[in-house]
Amino acid sequence: MTSRIKISSFFDGGNITVIDAAEPDNIRVSIPKDTESDFFQWFYFRLQGGMGEECIIHFENAKDAAYSEGWEGYQAVASYDREHWFRVPTQYEDGILTVAHQPEQDSVYYAYFAPYSYERHLDMLSWASSHEDCVTHHLGETAEGRDITLLEVTKTQGLAKNIWITARQHPGETMAEWFVEGLLERLFDESHPVARAMLKQCRFYIVPNMNPDGGVHGNLRVNSKGVNLNREWKRSSQENSPEVLAVQKKMAEVGVDMFLDIHGDETLPVNFVDGCIGVPNFDARMEAMETLFSQTLLAVSPDFQTDIGYEQDYFGEANLSVASKWVGNTYRCLSLTLEMPFKDNENLPDEEVGWSPERSKILGADVLYPIYQVINSKHMS
Amino acid sequence: MTSRIKISSFFDGGNITVIDAAEPDNIRVSIPKDTESDFFQWFYFRLQGGMGEECIIHFENAKDAAYSEGWEGYQAVASYDREHWFRVPTQYEDGILTVAHQPEQDSVYYAYFAPYSYERHLDMLSWASSHEDCVTHHLGETAEGRDITLLEVTKTQGLAKNIWITARQHPGETMAEWFVEGLLERLFDESHPVARAMLKQCRFYIVPNMNPDGGVHGNLRVNSKGVNLNREWKRSSQENSPEVLAVQKKMAEVGVDMFLDIHGDETLPVNFVDGCIGVPNFDARMEAMETLFSQTLLAVSPDFQTDIGYEQDYFGEANLSVASKWVGNTYRCLSLTLEMPFKDNENLPDEEVGWSPERSKILGADVLYPIYQVINSKHMS
Amino acid sequence: MTSRIKISSFFDGGNITVIDAAEPDNIRVSIPKDTESDFFQWFYFRLQGGMGEECIIHFENAKDAAYSEGWEGYQAVASYDREHWFRVPTQYEDGILTVAHQPEQDSVYYAYFAPYSYERHLDMLSWASSHEDCVTHHLGETAEGRDITLLEVTKTQGLAKNIWITARQHPGETMAEWFVEGLLERLFDESHPVARAMLKQCRFYIVPNMNPDGGVHGNLRVNSKGVNLNREWKRSSQENSPEVLAVQKKMAEVGVDMFLDIHGDETLPVNFVDGCIGVPNFDARMEAMETLFSQTLLAVSPDFQTDIGYEQDYFGEANLSVASKWVGNTYRCLSLTLEMPFKDNENLPDEEVGWSPERSKILGADVLYPIYQVINSKHMS
Amino acid sequence: MTSRIKISSFFDGGNITVIDAAEPDNIRVSIPKDTESDFFQWFYFRLQGGMGEECIIHFENAKDAAYSEGWEGYQAVASYDREHWFRVPTQYEDGILTVAHQPEQDSVYYAYFAPYSYERHLDMLSWASSHEDCVTHHLGETAEGRDITLLEVTKTQGLAKNIWITARQHPGETMAEWFVEGLLERLFDESHPVARAMLKQCRFYIVPNMNPDGGVHGNLRVNSKGVNLNREWKRSSQENSPEVLAVQKKMAEVGVDMFLDIHGDETLPVNFVDGCIGVPNFDARMEAMETLFSQTLLAVSPDFQTDIGYEQDYFGEANLSVASKWVGNTYRCLSLTLEMPFKDNENLPDEEVGWSPERSKILGADVLYPIYQVINSKHMS
Ligand SMILES: [Ca+2]
Ligand SMILES: [Ca+2]
Ligand SMILES: [Ca+2]
Ligand SMILES: [Ca+2]
Repeated sequence: MTSRIKISSFFDGGNITVIDAAEPDNIRVSIPKDTESDFFQWFYFRLQGGMGEECIIHFENAKDAAYSEGWEGYQAVASYDREHWFRVPTQYEDGILTVAHQPEQDSVYYAYFAPYSYERHLDMLSWASSHEDCVTHHLGETAEGRDITLLEVTKTQGLAKNIWITARQHPGETMAEWFVEGLLERLFDESHPVARAMLKQCRFYIVPNMNPDGGVHGNLRVNSKGVNLNREWKRSSQENSPEVLAVQKKMAEVGVDMFLDIHGDETLPVNFVDGCIGVPNFDARMEAMETLFSQTLLAVSPDFQTDIGYEQDYFGEANLSVASKWVGNTYRCLSLTLEMPFKDNENLPDEEVGWSPERSKILGADVLYPIYQVINSKHMS
Repeated sequence: MTSRIKISSFFDGGNITVIDAAEPDNIRVSIPKDTESDFFQWFYFRLQGGMGEECIIHFENAKDAAYSEGWEGYQAVASYDREHWFRVPTQYEDGILTVAHQPEQDSVYYAYFAPYSYERHLDMLSWASSHEDCVTHHLGETAEGRDITLLEVTKTQGLAKNIWITARQHPGETMAEWFVEGLLERLFDESHPVARAMLKQCRFYIVPNMNPDGGVHGNLRVNSKGVNLNREWKRSSQENSPEVLAVQKKMAEVGVDMFLDIHGDETLPVNFVDGCIGVPNFDARMEAMETLFSQTLLAVSPDFQTDIGYEQDYFGEANLSVASKWVGNTYRCLSLTLEMPFKDNENLPDEEVGWSPERSKILGADVLYPIYQVINSKHMS
Repeated sequence: MTSRIKISSFFDGGNITVIDAAEPDNIRVSIPKDTESDFFQWFYFRLQGGMGEECIIHFENAKDAAYSEGWEGYQAVASYDREHWFRVPTQYEDGILTVAHQPEQDSVYYAYFAPYSYERHLDMLSWASSHEDCVTHHLGETAEGRDITLLEVTKTQGLAKNIWITARQHPGETMAEWFVEGLLERLFDESHPVARAMLKQCRFYIVPNMNPDGGVHGNLRVNSKGVNLNREWKRSSQENSPEVLAVQKKMAEVGVDMFLDIHGDETLPVNFVDGCIGVPNFDARMEAMETLFSQTLLAVSPDFQTDIGYEQDYFGEANLSVASKWVGNTYRCLSLTLEMPFKDNENLPDEEVGWSPERSKILGADVLYPIYQVINSKHMS
Repeated sequence: MTSRIKISSFFDGGNITVIDAAEPDNIRVSIPKDTESDFFQWFYFRLQGGMGEECIIHFENAKDAAYSEGWEGYQAVASYDREHWFRVPTQYEDGILTVAHQPEQDSVYYAYFAPYSYERHLDMLSWASSHEDCVTHHLGETAEGRDITLLEVTKTQGLAKNIWITARQHPGETMAEWFVEGLLERLFDESHPVARAMLKQCRFYIVPNMNPDGGVHGNLRVNSKGVNLNREWKRSSQENSPEVLAVQKKMAEVGVDMFLDIHGDETLPVNFVDGCIGVPNFDARMEAMETLFSQTLLAVSPDFQTDIGYEQDYFGEANLSVASKWVGNTYRCLSLTLEMPFKDNENLPDEEVGWSPERSKILGADVLYPIYQVINSKHMS
């Protein structure tokens, strides 16, 4: 007799391997590796046939994931309608991650974080470019042939500060593209004073998805060539990292006055930024802008903090193959990696949804406040 | 020097081959064949870099398409926002189909008809199953591993008439899934008297997408094995047509009191139905139900007509490998193929959008009227 | 010590008199009379302070209401958000109507039927006239100085059939204006085949609210002069019934090919129409159109029926002071009173909401089907 | 022969007297006085019959309005759909205000500022109280019998800071109620970090409309007794200012830790606050909180400024009959009058809409940032 449980993942971003689904209360799965890579951590699948039963799902290879400490205190997300994602009871023990959930519907999705599909990405580009202040640019294509698209947003034809924002170099960090969606909604709000003021002063260059191939494949870290784009900025190539090469080329063409690279962090349960302290060209002006940025964001968002973050690099030791370090060093501008949690912001936790698309969008909108302060500070004159 | 024009199609349902895009006013393309098949007619691609220029696109292999007469009087559809699709000037001459259009945005999509992606399909299933009167069933999977999902919609636990509706056996006929979306919205309208009355009498079994593999691949007619599902009903197999086999098995389990198979017609510029007159078991009762169905739909929809359609089969000559013929003959019930145009309804033309998703949805909602009349006629007692 | 219960009604359409609200479980009220009139039945008020307590409200003068048989089987409506109105337990005994309800919010509204305010009326006029097929006409003003506005809806500049629709001669019959809202939404649906076909053939003249003064005052039957407009069509005057006079004048100017006067019935728990059988000019053609109208509406709406209705007039005995009789007799056209229930449609009851705004809107949309059939019948040539 | 122009104002907030409307290009009107008062400035009316013609409207008594300097640089607002209000060419010369506008629709509304009706007010109360963190309180009733309603919003049952916000003491300053709508939307945003953090710390007491009688009557400054509520706080009475008395009573019951009184200013083309510097109990702590509030709002909103405002009172000379002065003096808390322009914010002007409902709503949302900073400052410990 066969199980009624059906697990499927053959859709955009889907990622799981079923070992055994004969018994709902002992479903055994493993997370497939990223394309041409040993990294893995992203999972996303649909479970049918479990309505009303306690479904217990064991991720048997969890301990070998890219960030096994990411499973500590982590709760998986689930959705019936593919719009609202909520947390479900999850624990990590003896190297196995276990989700226990009794679905209320016959069809339910589970994921590492709320997905952001390539179709939604294309919808966002179309929606954005339909606004009068926005045009799209084709920067190039991925190894598999997907478009790398840049959004340019401004109200001015003249001289302006160039604010660059990139997201999803690591394709499984979908919160980064939700963040961009929120930032764009704010920029397009014709009544918002900060958006109105900034679009007269600035030209935003936004790449909402640096790694569409990896996103479609359900990868955590790499593109379809198995390459981690955020280690390619010193050695980008058409062969391995056309996504980075295309962006660097456009940066060289128009210039960079500020750069934010948006990420998700598997381990730390907070939002934070990482600056350029260890890059060769780091100076007092860059440091002052980093401080002003952080202090302003702190003042407007209890979802941001500065106590916890990455260890700071010593002078000259920063890894210039990382996007924010390379850009900061090259353009001597404010250049930050902004990290959001896969887990929750432990300073303002939300038991139902944890860190979420909605909260990512608000942070994306709120990041305009520190950008605005820095742009109008003495450091930019 | 390279052209600024960039044509891409590496997304769900995308289908085009670029021969030459050096000059915007002489873009040459061809339509790739369906997977493992010689059929082709469906195209769908994104064009970037043409804003404000007259873009002239020649489809050079149009004369060898599955239905070359389908190009006569046909206008291609375009969209900036991937939601609103409008017709653009198109002509067919000397075996070449030519679209001439000056895009107002940097990024524009062209297609044979408004697409319906697999992501939207999964969204629809989730949305539908979230209604209290609807549950999903996993019927099986395609050759490539996508789910074949059945929606069951009813308000009754007891005896009820079983109304079966299938759509997109031919995956390029996307209007069929738009039709289903409209029908479901009407069924879920808690205030609509026909929906309320029918859900107490009937159990709807709806397969919104019979051929998800073909849809993702941008096929017109076949699944990923190169098989035309609507010629498989006498010989369905797990190997070639698991989609059909799975539906037939469930039909055998629950029974069929009425069947509608939803399609698009490449050639005829009208909506029409095709019945079972030539099947061996055709009888006066089936004929009366066909007549009642058509007369009721005529009375409520100027988008329907009965003057133009397929030639009627002679007795016993109907092709039982076709879904509606096979089901009608097997279950001796009202069983129809419903066809919508790729072009327009010439009796009530709309120059801006032609036949459209919105009009398909309304026809899908309106089809409840004739179903209601037939179910409550003496023929069903 | 004073009661925490506060009942208020000083807002658009509000109508109640509090006798005693000291005890939540014994609230005593009476329904005020219409302006300058002895009619009364409409009530509408807000109750604060009753959250979580069983509130029992006695309408002590119910037996003297205009239609005391209207209370038999009647359930009052309530709303927390002023959008969704649901039925609450109500009984009529010994001449007293009693509502028993435990509110879930601190503030709750009760009414005879879901209200339709003058502000919403003005919003509807603005929304309607913003459509390209619609213009507004100022017909005149009420005794108190409110505008009587006519909406003209058509897609043609040339000859067309003139379809007249009036609503809320009796201002407490708010379902009539909900009905018009639904009809307008359908007419403005650019994809709906019946709407598209009819707007090329017809010119709709719609008066969504014949009696704005009465509506604001919370009257059931009369205007601010105490006059029942639906008894004024033989004797309309600037003094007493400027609303009727203004409409008759415009009818004379443009002509009438069909007329529907929309009402609510306090007593009968069904939807029905009342025709012109007793008017002097009634003839076979008018009778045939009445039959065609009713049969078509029956075919599309289980919320309509023809078994129950008003007693038919004998020849020549019809009351020509009634709008539909007067118009039918004057213009020898199809002319109907359409009645909806305050209670429910007992043939397809909905225990939660009874007859409702949403169902009224759908009936208003569906009435285009019979209009379409009559317009395209031989009777109109 | 009569003019086709029809001007009407018999609706909620309507206010105009027609002197002569015979010629569209020479329409002469005057603004009626507030109820029982000599103040006047608010106008609001509907004009029909002017489509496609240049309509020139002279307000002949403009020079005697409450704030004749308010007409300098002022542009009136207009709307076709009663939702989107835009500015129309207006000039003030020789004591007469003249609006010149060619309407695109048959029906158009003109007003001093985008209206906020009593119906919308009741809708807002219902919408707000449907949120789980909000309850309504009935504080009392106006002289005419309308409800004075208080919204209490919090996530805590325990000790919390009491933030009081009142709006529309002056009923014609409708931007104040739009401001509250925006503030409430932000407070109810379950994902917004500031809202989430504050609702655990604070209890908001919000009176969205202090003067419903005046609003319905189309008054600028006074209630139905002709009384300016913002001069009643030292002498409030059941007879003349029950609105103020009721609020003071509730303040005494629960306490006040911060108070914002929301207003519109007829003359100054900026947003600003006015503090308590001249009240007897003013001290360094209050001053520090005023400064922190202003500096925080400055940092997040280019629609706020501190250069222009009212002249500061000398010590002890402040008028304690004004709400913010009285509350600040009584409760020794941060207490501000917040003023928005009827004109535009001249530092960030918007030619199409000027200062608007949307911008008022955003300022209302943004005011949570300074509240949050003050609540979490050392001054509140
Ligand atoms: Ca654009
Ligand atoms: Ca369901
Ligand atoms: Ca119009
Ligand atoms: Ca509440």
